[in-house]
Amino acid sequence: MPSSTSRIEAFSDGVMAIAITLLVLDLRVPTQEQVAAANGDLVAVLGTRWPSYVAYLAAFLTIGIIWLNHHAFVHKLVRMDATLLWLNLLMLLGVATLPFPTALLAEFVGDGGRPAATAALIYGLLSVATALPWVLMWRHIRDHPELLAHGLGDDHARAELRRASMGPIIYVFAIPLALVVPLLALVFYLAISVIYAISSQGARVGAEASE
Amino acid sequence: MPSSTSRIEAFSDGVMAIAITLLVLDLRVPTQEQVAAANGDLVAVLGTRWPSYVAYLAAFLTIGIIWLNHHAFVHKLVRMDATLLWLNLLMLLGVATLPFPTALLAEFVGDGGRPAATAALIYGLLSVATALPWVLMWRHIRDHPELLAHGLGDDHARAELRRASMGPIIYVFAIPLALVVPLLALVFYLAISVIYAISSQGARVGAEASE
Amino acid sequence: MPSSTSRIEAFSDGVMAIAITLLVLDLRVPTQEQVAAANGDLVAVLGTRWPSYVAYLAAFLTIGIIWLNHHAFVHKLVRMDATLLWLNLLMLLGVATLPFPTALLAEFVGDGGRPAATAALIYGLLSVATALPWVLMWRHIRDHPELLAHGLGDDHARAELRRASMGPIIYVFAIPLALVVPLLALVFYLAISVIYAISSQGARVGAEASE
Amino acid sequence: MPSSTSRIEAFSDGVMAIAITLLVLDLRVPTQEQVAAANGDLVAVLGTRWPSYVAYLAAFLTIGIIWLNHHAFVHKLVRMDATLLWLNLLMLLGVATLPFPTALLAEFVGDGGRPAATAALIYGLLSVATALPWVLMWRHIRDHPELLAHGLGDDHARAELRRASMGPIIYVFAIPLALVVPLLALVFYLAISVIYAISSQGARVGAEASE
Repeated sequence: MPSSTSRIEAFSDGVMAIAITLLVLDLRVPTQEQVAAANGDLVAVLGTRWPSYVAYLAAFLTIGIIWLNHHAFVHKLVRMDATLLWLNLLMLLGVATLPFPTALLAEFVGDGGRPAATAALIYGLLSVATALPWVLMWRHIRDHPELLAHGLGDDHARAELRRASMGPIIYVFAIPLALVVPLLALVFYLAISVIYAISSQGARVGAEASE
Repeated sequence: MPSSTSRIEAFSDGVMAIAITLLVLDLRVPTQEQVAAANGDLVAVLGTRWPSYVAYLAAFLTIGIIWLNHHAFVHKLVRMDATLLWLNLLMLLGVATLPFPTALLAEFVGDGGRPAATAALIYGLLSVATALPWVLMWRHIRDHPELLAHGLGDDHARAELRRASMGPIIYVFAIPLALVVPLLALVFYLAISVIYAISSQGARVGAEASE
Repeated sequence: MPSSTSRIEAFSDGVMAIAITLLVLDLRVPTQEQVAAANGDLVAVLGTRWPSYVAYLAAFLTIGIIWLNHHAFVHKLVRMDATLLWLNLLMLLGVATLPFPTALLAEFVGDGGRPAATAALIYGLLSVATALPWVLMWRHIRDHPELLAHGLGDDHARAELRRASMGPIIYVFAIPLALVVPLLALVFYLAISVIYAISSQGARVGAEASE
Repeated sequence: MPSSTSRIEAFSDGVMAIAITLLVLDLRVPTQEQVAAANGDLVAVLGTRWPSYVAYLAAFLTIGIIWLNHHAFVHKLVRMDATLLWLNLLMLLGVATLPFPTALLAEFVGDGGRPAATAALIYGLLSVATALPWVLMWRHIRDHPELLAHGLGDDHARAELRRASMGPIIYVFAIPLALVVPLLALVFYLAISVIYAISSQGARVGAEASE
């Protein structure tokens, strides 16, 4: 039998792989009637839906980065206790729910009115809710350093806690933006993902993950 | 090649991870027409659908807890015989089917009439059907203690059988409630999950699972 | 790195776990309008859809049994060569496609006319197509006994080939039945699964799988 | 804890297994009204949708072949560094998105007009986008031969880079075809898959994968 940690990895990987792949269902195919109404110009019909592609990319990258983080995270632990198991499940709840605000955003952000602001706000709030369990997990590990593997000390846990705390803060700052210029909030979410992806931090996470 | 038990874990984890992630498809995005009819008030439109969010949370937690239990369960066995394999498949049938009554509940519980009662009843009956294979599995293990790992005796199997038997009983009690006040039954299902999650029992399961 | 066989198992398990869980999407939730048209009698509305539940159960059991067989199958091999990999992919194509004729059957079998016969026929033909790769795989193994593990000889491969050949034959016999009494064909498909499940053969597969 | 490479395999396998299985959702079941309008001739109604079956098969084989390639690919590496992790995620983005142009193609290719050409073009462009990360990955490995396992030298990386570069080129050639005769492009995509599958190259990949 594999260790418990590896089964938690397998279940978490499963949920993240499924959530990331289900996002494609939000890219809805236009009906033949809609295309006929646009004189058969499928490019034009798809073009009006560009916010849904940005939302798709932002959500895909977000889940991809969470997976990379989770990957590096699990490798720093010797085991997960009950608290970590539940917080991990809470984090997966956020990831599994992400296709819903992504679909909301894709549907309403193009109009730019109140529904667009609401959709961008809900996306932002869920992002905060998905980032929070990371803070709680690292706080728990800081207080239980015996969970840490590889001779990592509570110094390491404290550094990770600071880093994890940045996530919710960035998203909280994006919320007023979402209310005023929803489209910009969407671009901002995508930018966070891309910056994170190409930054040295992202690379470091990747490098650690690959060791 | 990994042991058979680990492949049963992998398949079971797969089904549970997919079922838990498919639940999000029941959170349907309102159409632009529906939002326009509410004067662009997306919050109001989403607000009328709150029972679907409670149903989503209850089902997510239910499957999450079943996964934690399954996790602890497999680690108490040296192997699964044919009977356990089939009972395990029966249990997975219950889990995989759960998105259906969840969607029924989400669609009809808000109205509070006969359809609401029917939906709550079906959810309750499927919950009983998902809890029953656990009783049968532990009864089979009690009669075949050679399947137990780690020097666990049939005392342990008897204790687990008593514990597993509580599940169907609790759900059976909720059924009359579902018929009279369907909304309350929904809250009750969620409460069972939450209580289980924060109770020491839940913690104990988690702790065992992480060892 | 795990052995190649274990990665083929992981991918195959993934496809089978997803296909078995996607089946639930065919159990469509009636709209509020449909229930209102039936005077709020949700039980009656769901009741008219009973063939879709039988189709769901038959398809769930079929994939479950294929998984059990695949489980036992892989454990009899030391490795898969290129031919087996492609035949395995062909078998997965059948499994992954099964939700489609199941949905067809659920939609049309209740009426009993020509569409019902067509749907039952397509389900039967796909079942034959899913059973055929097993015959081809065992024929290939009979001719390449060095792929067999555990000191199993080509006697064993020959026995398995005979057993695998029964699958397509049974389904071919069901095809004329599908054309005349489609509903009976549906019950017949379910019966095959149940008989297989409770028969000693099924138990033997399970027992081997659990060793 | 398993090695990082095995977890990347698990996540990649998950995404590929889900994407390949989600394709079946594009095979939409006709409504009872559509069949009634065709005098109950379900075969005729399904028959008009044959391009969606070709698109389904082409996409299924494409993902299946990418999985076989990925399988062989990972076994040639000792580890993935940060660059490979991100390129791998990019490749998975292409795979996970494939069900969308497949659905577009299925919906519009039958008509043969401008929408058909657009759909075939988008399918082709996404195929190029999915094939490009392979080129980038092998270029990176050529420049970092220490990532190669099993005593493979940069000769091997150079050969793989040439082979990987063929993918985008073939698809680029198909693009003008898509604009003129979209239906032929669809058949061409399927042919690429089939030829690849039965060619010695495909067999070689399979054989390596199974060692």
